[in-house]
Amino acid sequence: MLPQWIIENKRDGAELSNEEIFFMIQGLTDGSIPDYQIAAFVMAVYFQGMTPAETAALTIEMMLSGETIDPASLPGIKADKHSTGGIGDKTSLILAPLAAACGLTVPMLSGRGLGITGGTLDKLESIPGYRTDLTGNEFFDCLENVGCIITGSTAQLAPADKKLYALRDVTGTVPSIPLITASIMSKKLAEGIDTLVLDVKWGKGAFMKTKEQARELAEAMVEVGTHMEKKVRALITDMNAPLGRAVGNALEVQECLEVLNGGGPDDLRELTVELTAHMLELSGVFPTIGKAKDKILDCLGNGEALKKFEAMVAAQGGSTDWKFAEASIQEPLLAPADGIVTAVDAEWIGKGCLMLGAARWKTDDTIDHAVGISQMKKPGESVKKGEPLAVIFSNDRKKLNEAFPLFGKSFEIGDSVVPSPLVCEVIGRETQ
Amino acid sequence: MLPQWIIENKRDGAELSNEEIFFMIQGLTDGSIPDYQIAAFVMAVYFQGMTPAETAALTIEMMLSGETIDPASLPGIKADKHSTGGIGDKTSLILAPLAAACGLTVPMLSGRGLGITGGTLDKLESIPGYRTDLTGNEFFDCLENVGCIITGSTAQLAPADKKLYALRDVTGTVPSIPLITASIMSKKLAEGIDTLVLDVKWGKGAFMKTKEQARELAEAMVEVGTHMEKKVRALITDMNAPLGRAVGNALEVQECLEVLNGGGPDDLRELTVELTAHMLELSGVFPTIGKAKDKILDCLGNGEALKKFEAMVAAQGGSTDWKFAEASIQEPLLAPADGIVTAVDAEWIGKGCLMLGAARWKTDDTIDHAVGISQMKKPGESVKKGEPLAVIFSNDRKKLNEAFPLFGKSFEIGDSVVPSPLVCEVIGRETQ
Repeated sequence: MLPQWIIENKRDGAELSNEEIFFMIQGLTDGSIPDYQIAAFVMAVYFQGMTPAETAALTIEMMLSGETIDPASLPGIKADKHSTGGIGDKTSLILAPLAAACGLTVPMLSGRGLGITGGTLDKLESIPGYRTDLTGNEFFDCLENVGCIITGSTAQLAPADKKLYALRDVTGTVPSIPLITASIMSKKLAEGIDTLVLDVKWGKGAFMKTKEQARELAEAMVEVGTHMEKKVRALITDMNAPLGRAVGNALEVQECLEVLNGGGPDDLRELTVELTAHMLELSGVFPTIGKAKDKILDCLGNGEALKKFEAMVAAQGGSTDWKFAEASIQEPLLAPADGIVTAVDAEWIGKGCLMLGAARWKTDDTIDHAVGISQMKKPGESVKKGEPLAVIFSNDRKKLNEAFPLFGKSFEIGDSVVPSPLVCEVIGRETQ
Repeated sequence: MLPQWIIENKRDGAELSNEEIFFMIQGLTDGSIPDYQIAAFVMAVYFQGMTPAETAALTIEMMLSGETIDPASLPGIKADKHSTGGIGDKTSLILAPLAAACGLTVPMLSGRGLGITGGTLDKLESIPGYRTDLTGNEFFDCLENVGCIITGSTAQLAPADKKLYALRDVTGTVPSIPLITASIMSKKLAEGIDTLVLDVKWGKGAFMKTKEQARELAEAMVEVGTHMEKKVRALITDMNAPLGRAVGNALEVQECLEVLNGGGPDDLRELTVELTAHMLELSGVFPTIGKAKDKILDCLGNGEALKKFEAMVAAQGGSTDWKFAEASIQEPLLAPADGIVTAVDAEWIGKGCLMLGAARWKTDDTIDHAVGISQMKKPGESVKKGEPLAVIFSNDRKKLNEAFPLFGKSFEIGDSVVPSPLVCEVIGRETQ
């Protein structure tokens, strides 16, 4: 077998065998196949796609390219959630302790943000002392004692994915459904989980710009997970406007605390409850989504979810007095007219926060945890001229001045708006 | 400008600017763009193609990546021929001296064979002493004194093509019309020629399996040449059966001598005369193809073309006593039945000769110049059962035994055959 034969087969639209995919991923991992052959291969995959069987084989080989967590070493039913990323998407911080409070074990290995999309680890690191580099023992202890953890992946987990993603990033081969699917699923399934709920976002602030693209990715991921005998379900959700009223690391953690205290913005609470309920029902903890939701609302109302969050943060070295760095400049963005907020453009909000320093242009940029936007008006809410649409948090007047126009043009004010559903579709659900 | 942006533009089907193409080829040549980005780029070109303007820009940049021969330094009208390669295609050896005898200057830089297709330099090296590594001075002296030369390219000529071809060879990106076009034309136009005649072959023994593919390549090459203000014409010719009656290096040179002596197989003579006549008419040496042919047939009949060949061989250090290495085993392939030869499969003949050692599996293989096949019956000729269809030349009984069945199945015997035209179409001809 020669790499160029496999490249030619894919180029010509053939379905590759498991052996051929194994050969390519093993060669990628051990370096025996040069990067230029891998690059030509993934560009051929970009154009020709992959069948579900090929995508499953690719996922399995990437997962097996490194260490995997032994499910038997974790207590209870293991479940996790993955989001394809959006602006103000902080659901993981609430969902992990909430699901643990409802009886699941959540070994969440998360990542950092790049570009306009924030990263879960970046958000948590705005809590003083929070560590995302736990050792193996600390990881298992935290899961055993608390029931959930949100920490970083290691170099040993799915190394083929790390190599391949770095190559795709510079060869124009990121936006390929089978390659995205294998990248996400190989890492998640290496966690040793039984159940996975996917939040596949579409819209202005999402990687997938249309509902159709999001559905295609969701179906591919559910298909691969099912092929690997895991319980996998995907929710296709709206990411045209930011989620919640806050974007920016410390500001988002504070919003999560509001939800964990029984309050918070409606959309953030609704989406987190939906994702958690699907996870509980899919895992078999509750027979219906409705019964799962009852328990979830209890846990949000009676402080049990908050207690889990506090225990997790403490176990990971974080301070639970909830004191955060504050931005030196806090400036309101005023409504230019009376009316109804008809749209808030997630992409522009994300770009504005990136300019303030809330996210990274390049992987080695440092983040200012205090900056961002908060108290955003939501689509459907009415405003008076001169009333704040949001408050901008910055530590740098120049950056604020640059970002301000972006925030300004994010908000559309009009006469009326038809509310669009937050959860558009559920993929991989057999019964209610 | 970043390479990945250019890759993404091509991936999405955009027409690249001259600056973008220049950036990629300069980066390829000086090594500043890594091979994996070039590999992804050429795979994107494979799928999205290139417009004539892009192909011309690519050709020019590849040509300018190294040294070019200054046309002013060569005498007379400079012309060359390029063939896309076929089995038994030895026309260059006759055409170069023949065109020189008719008044043109032919600075032919040729290559070696790989796989079933033989190389012009390999054939000439079966002449004891023949050198294909002439210095610059020797090159110009030979052209000045003889009027033609057939020698090897240098590392300084179109180095971007050498790098790119090596990469394409291992990344499944060889069969791309714009990439083939730029590869051929960048090298040929670096020779400083005024006129180029292309022999674009289609059929079982050709790279292009259909007439349509051959036409597409021919049109692309003529378009690029015309764009670069050169006189370029392409003949689309049949390569289903081998050309002539001999395949194998020394055997082919001997067949060329037959033609240069006024004899030889009809098809080889016909194709060489056609190509040379088009070259002479296109160069303006003769006003019509007909008048060019009169002169060509004179030169083949009166020994002038042979004299040029002898002068060229002598100038390149070769012996002109026409003694060649002889194969130790010479075995006839006998007809299994009475009938008419209806087909001779060029691909199988080529594979058989490759097995005998007449060509290379890998670039560093050595060639046995004496082996091959000769005295082949041609389609349309009648045979009696037990009469030789051809004679096989080998220096190794085991290789002969392995190759024999391939030769056997190359010949089809039936009742009748409709002759197919050797020259199917002419591209780039404005007038008769």
